[in-house]
Amino acid sequence: MTERKEPLTVVKVGGKIVETPESLEKLLNNFSQIEGHKLLVHGGGRSATAFASKLGIETQMIDGRRVTSAEMLDVVTMVYGGLVNKNLVAKLQACGVNALGLTGADMNVMLAHRRPVKNGVDYGFVGDVDSVDASHLASLIRSGITPVMAPLTHNGEGTLLNTNADTIAGETAKALASEFDVTLVFCFELAGVLADPDDEASVIAHINAETFETLKRDGIVVGGMIPKIENSLAAVRAGVKRVIITRADALGTSKGTTIE
Amino acid sequence: MTERKEPLTVVKVGGKIVETPESLEKLLNNFSQIEGHKLLVHGGGRSATAFASKLGIETQMIDGRRVTSAEMLDVVTMVYGGLVNKNLVAKLQACGVNALGLTGADMNVMLAHRRPVKNGVDYGFVGDVDSVDASHLASLIRSGITPVMAPLTHNGEGTLLNTNADTIAGETAKALASEFDVTLVFCFELAGVLADPDDEASVIAHINAETFETLKRDGIVVGGMIPKIENSLAAVRAGVKRVIITRADALGTSKGTTIE
Repeated sequence: MTERKEPLTVVKVGGKIVETPESLEKLLNNFSQIEGHKLLVHGGGRSATAFASKLGIETQMIDGRRVTSAEMLDVVTMVYGGLVNKNLVAKLQACGVNALGLTGADMNVMLAHRRPVKNGVDYGFVGDVDSVDASHLASLIRSGITPVMAPLTHNGEGTLLNTNADTIAGETAKALASEFDVTLVFCFELAGVLADPDDEASVIAHINAETFETLKRDGIVVGGMIPKIENSLAAVRAGVKRVIITRADALGTSKGTTIE
Repeated sequence: MTERKEPLTVVKVGGKIVETPESLEKLLNNFSQIEGHKLLVHGGGRSATAFASKLGIETQMIDGRRVTSAEMLDVVTMVYGGLVNKNLVAKLQACGVNALGLTGADMNVMLAHRRPVKNGVDYGFVGDVDSVDASHLASLIRSGITPVMAPLTHNGEGTLLNTNADTIAGETAKALASEFDVTLVFCFELAGVLADPDDEASVIAHINAETFETLKRDGIVVGGMIPKIENSLAAVRAGVKRVIITRADALGTSKGTTIE
């Protein structure tokens, strides 16, 4: 007899969505209507860049990742952990969602190590995840709490680390997969994985390990989409029920690309 | 038969202590050694003022309270809820304390309303506490978590509010008094309530409702100390076992003034 697990939807939204009032309102509305247990992971890069600039701190990106000096770490701690996270929590409370904002340091949820310097590239205070302790998180979710996670982890020695929000979402989803029937939703700027990059209607509805190989071989899935789908398939192999790549405004509908 | 409640120590520390590296280290050390359940409430006013100034936002205080414009609300949300709170959490984790940082919006712990304009004075986004929901907090504490509370509440309609840290500590202690045997510690710049303001050795060890009347009548307790003791006596009437006013570096010792 297999025990039936309760469903949990883990949603990752980028900074762009939570930083624009109109798209934020739609997101809060759609997210709060998701039935069953849920968890939100957010970014906040644009606000961090804007705020850093106000403080005279220059933003440096390498391969789309923020180089995080000690000064920039303070900025992302304030913006991700404070401004964005706590405003999301307050707004979700107003939508009837009993949210709890946290970083990977809170309840020791996510331990990471500082990314080592490689080929002369030093990302600074950027963390690569080592382990996830989802036990307290699982109890809270069962008791009706909706965790809202900022893209920050810690090294266990008192230092916070800036960590990619996609990674936080993926690792959290995997860690909770033994306790819940997890659907991981990546909100994306497009309607899903497109068969034709110029045609928003060409969403590929389903991808699995087998069809992914064909899509790659035929040159339909290319570039940055490849690691995204590879990570999704890895999450599925690690026990996540399904991964959905979709537009934020399609949250809660069956639109988008389902990877399982 | 009276059920024996587990002890809980609620400690309030001002911004000055958590913002100075040396006193912060001592605090973390002393706080982490407190036996049994514990909860920390912190300020952060100096950092907020410093950050606001870097952003070109002027700090205005009325009767020692910060006037909180929309811009200043963003600053305190970043500094109290992000910078100070999350760094405290990471540093407590490094001391072996499984901390969880939160504001009153998180888990809907503390609902407040915006302070009405009175005698032409508008404090802006400052919240006066209406209610405390300590149920989730109590479960977390029992499961080994140490909450770390930033001085922010929310109005239930999506807006965060800046709220005095002493009030947060007092209201939280009272709300948890039905579940725990609560000692509320206010860390203070002096060794306790002094019989002679010029003599640090003249700490009054115990004050109760009766002796307080005498101390007031004899002019020994004056000025800002009066409301502090009145609030402490009110907490005791509301079920808090004892209130201790002491220096942060005496945390965990029997020094200071005990009000019960």
